[in-house]
Amino acid sequence: MTIESAIEELAPHFGDRLSRTAAVREQHGHDEAHHAPKPPDAVIWPRSTDEVALVARTCHAHGCPIVPWGTGTSLEGQVIPVQGGISLDFARMDQVLAVHAEDMDVVVQPGIRRKQLNEYLRDTGLFFPIDPGADASLGGMAATRASGTCAVRYGTMREAVLALEVVMADGRVIRTGSRARKSSAGYDLTKLIVGSEGTLGIITELTIRLHGVPEAISAATCAFIGMEDAVNAVIQTIQMGVPVARIELLDALTIRGFNGYSGYDMPEHPTLFLEFHGSESGVAEQAETVGEIARDHGCLGFDWTTNPEERSRLWQARHDVYYAQQSLRKGSRGYVTDACVPISRLAEAILETAEDLATSPLIAPLVGHVGDGNFHLAILIDPTDPVEVAEAERLGTRISERALRLGGTVTGEHGVGLGKRKFMQAEHGDAWAVMGDIKRTLDPRGILNPGKIVPGN
Amino acid sequence: MTIESAIEELAPHFGDRLSRTAAVREQHGHDEAHHAPKPPDAVIWPRSTDEVALVARTCHAHGCPIVPWGTGTSLEGQVIPVQGGISLDFARMDQVLAVHAEDMDVVVQPGIRRKQLNEYLRDTGLFFPIDPGADASLGGMAATRASGTCAVRYGTMREAVLALEVVMADGRVIRTGSRARKSSAGYDLTKLIVGSEGTLGIITELTIRLHGVPEAISAATCAFIGMEDAVNAVIQTIQMGVPVARIELLDALTIRGFNGYSGYDMPEHPTLFLEFHGSESGVAEQAETVGEIARDHGCLGFDWTTNPEERSRLWQARHDVYYAQQSLRKGSRGYVTDACVPISRLAEAILETAEDLATSPLIAPLVGHVGDGNFHLAILIDPTDPVEVAEAERLGTRISERALRLGGTVTGEHGVGLGKRKFMQAEHGDAWAVMGDIKRTLDPRGILNPGKIVPGN
Repeated sequence: MTIESAIEELAPHFGDRLSRTAAVREQHGHDEAHHAPKPPDAVIWPRSTDEVALVARTCHAHGCPIVPWGTGTSLEGQVIPVQGGISLDFARMDQVLAVHAEDMDVVVQPGIRRKQLNEYLRDTGLFFPIDPGADASLGGMAATRASGTCAVRYGTMREAVLALEVVMADGRVIRTGSRARKSSAGYDLTKLIVGSEGTLGIITELTIRLHGVPEAISAATCAFIGMEDAVNAVIQTIQMGVPVARIELLDALTIRGFNGYSGYDMPEHPTLFLEFHGSESGVAEQAETVGEIARDHGCLGFDWTTNPEERSRLWQARHDVYYAQQSLRKGSRGYVTDACVPISRLAEAILETAEDLATSPLIAPLVGHVGDGNFHLAILIDPTDPVEVAEAERLGTRISERALRLGGTVTGEHGVGLGKRKFMQAEHGDAWAVMGDIKRTLDPRGILNPGKIVPGN
Repeated sequence: MTIESAIEELAPHFGDRLSRTAAVREQHGHDEAHHAPKPPDAVIWPRSTDEVALVARTCHAHGCPIVPWGTGTSLEGQVIPVQGGISLDFARMDQVLAVHAEDMDVVVQPGIRRKQLNEYLRDTGLFFPIDPGADASLGGMAATRASGTCAVRYGTMREAVLALEVVMADGRVIRTGSRARKSSAGYDLTKLIVGSEGTLGIITELTIRLHGVPEAISAATCAFIGMEDAVNAVIQTIQMGVPVARIELLDALTIRGFNGYSGYDMPEHPTLFLEFHGSESGVAEQAETVGEIARDHGCLGFDWTTNPEERSRLWQARHDVYYAQQSLRKGSRGYVTDACVPISRLAEAILETAEDLATSPLIAPLVGHVGDGNFHLAILIDPTDPVEVAEAERLGTRISERALRLGGTVTGEHGVGLGKRKFMQAEHGDAWAVMGDIKRTLDPRGILNPGKIVPGN
């Protein structure tokens, strides 16, 4: 019983929807980050839950690893089949199965991408607000417990996923949760699967909470002399309960890259990017309140706009910030960190990190979903230079350890995958062993995305 | 190894904080509902996590059941020690351990009651919004995944609990989650424990999300000719994204009881009770929007008030509604149902239920957290009359089955306990077996609140 025998048994069922060509395998062997690639032995494109169940049953019998694949935009190596086996590509399971406009929810297959979903919803008055930047698949976003720029207002995938259909390791198909907005009916298996990165079960259907398209939207930017002022303005905004839809911090270095890459001419200072959603008067009131707070913290100007084109351009540029950051050093790649701390410790986390960087040969622009206490450095390295990679690892480790010391987490939204597993003992203590117990119970043969999240192989 | 030997071993450690007197045991043998009482063999009042761990280790070794006890206000028999053993009363672990005002969270022991917590928070500008009516303990509310009147705006205990300290069945102490607002660091054990009713671990500390006391609050009531109009007004309010803080439906029968019990003189019609939180202008805007919606659905008048005394009186009366309902039939007790459905099916669920009641000899006033699709009947029975009890069971079963047929859950907020376990297979299918697998892994000897939630004994 081997990987080979599992693929052999599955091949006749899938025809040309099972591929073993080098190009396809290579394409499914890496994600968007720096982790060492490793191709799967085969890629399968299932078209139905039954087909996924067949793959699971067969792989369970043969001891063949299965790694679910959405769009490959993960950043911690989640989709890399480190022990080989089958990459299960959900590109052909990307349909909207039902829109329940009155209940503001939608039932989708896991391969659908977030922009595709919002395009589909365009005439319903509803939208899916979770926006990690990448045009990721909903299945992948749920598996990673993704969030992004709108989480401060609309929550993360933890809040967005109401119900799931999941294929278990042995091929059983279960349904978790329901379309009811709340329930006290036993263990919350939905929330257990969300964030489990394909290690407990394979998501084959999701019921997702939607939100009404706001009547009015406005955006604003405001620059501050120092990081601390900017962060304190954010803290006060959150504490006053202003329901900002987005509140992002870009440091001076990022603004420099941003100006060059996206053709802006902003002062090179720490800058907040804000978005307000609500009624016409509500949005105006929010912007006014935040403007006052910003001025109290010495902001250098509060520019706001309700023009849709200007707004779109600004947020598109914000989404391109990773490329803008990389443009600061030609040929470099960003080694991305993901600390998230209680907001009261955010200034401290950022300022101590800046001290680390002051004595490092590397530069590392910062962008943060600061309303949630989450920030990312893109440590710009030559990925072929082992000294630079080691230095990035050293800085990243200090950032992760600092996040834990300040009562936070080593990963706000990118997940554990390969990159953060080494911090799990420090973050969770004995709770990490409990995660391992649950994993072994639900996947006794260890075929579901082995080598990720839990202790052991 | 028996219950007796466990108690014998623990007795010297606890002195007079371990009681075996009949009165104390009787008091810990029932909750607030109709389920058959069964006293524990002993009650222990722990004072620390270490003491809880000692109880768990000892009971694990001896095979002695442990049932955590908060205030005994559960409604589905959760606290009843159906297999005897030890009731662990958290009354002496009721302290606030830390308030983090800047982060809007608080760390508490499980025995603290919600009113006590809000009293403690009074000068901080923050409050804990989850309000199930009863002055329950935070530990019990987390274990039951409680919610109540404010869930439509502030969420349930699912959203409120950021982190936990949990004593596992074998006495290991784990910490789940962190004070960071979001995390992608592995399995969400916090959400797994919330709602597990003491069957997976014993909560010994909670970190709870707080909210800012709103600048302005106003309340309103509006009556409708029919239930359907009232429900449709609610649906439209939710769909328009009006951030109502409370939106409760009381049927005509409940209003009759309410008038008599609390000294009001409202027209005996289905009536919405609303509360708005926000800025002065935001609250006014919300009330205006909802007023328009209500008029579009033929409401008979929209009375609103910002007077704090009037508001308090109204909501106190709302909290007393269970007694008001019981006052409709002298000497009766309410058999309380807890269906929760997608809001688009709420009118259907309520109207079909009304048809059931039209042919039943029993009367059953209704109150609903309708913004969440959740409603309760208090079926008024003479609890000593087996014919009436059986009829209430019959009606309750129809309501639960209907909730499932309409895509909902048999329990929106009261939990599974003893009363709803018979519906778990129908609600969860094979996912119920998965819950059982997790239970056996984390509590292999079955000592944690046995007989609840999962399949088996």
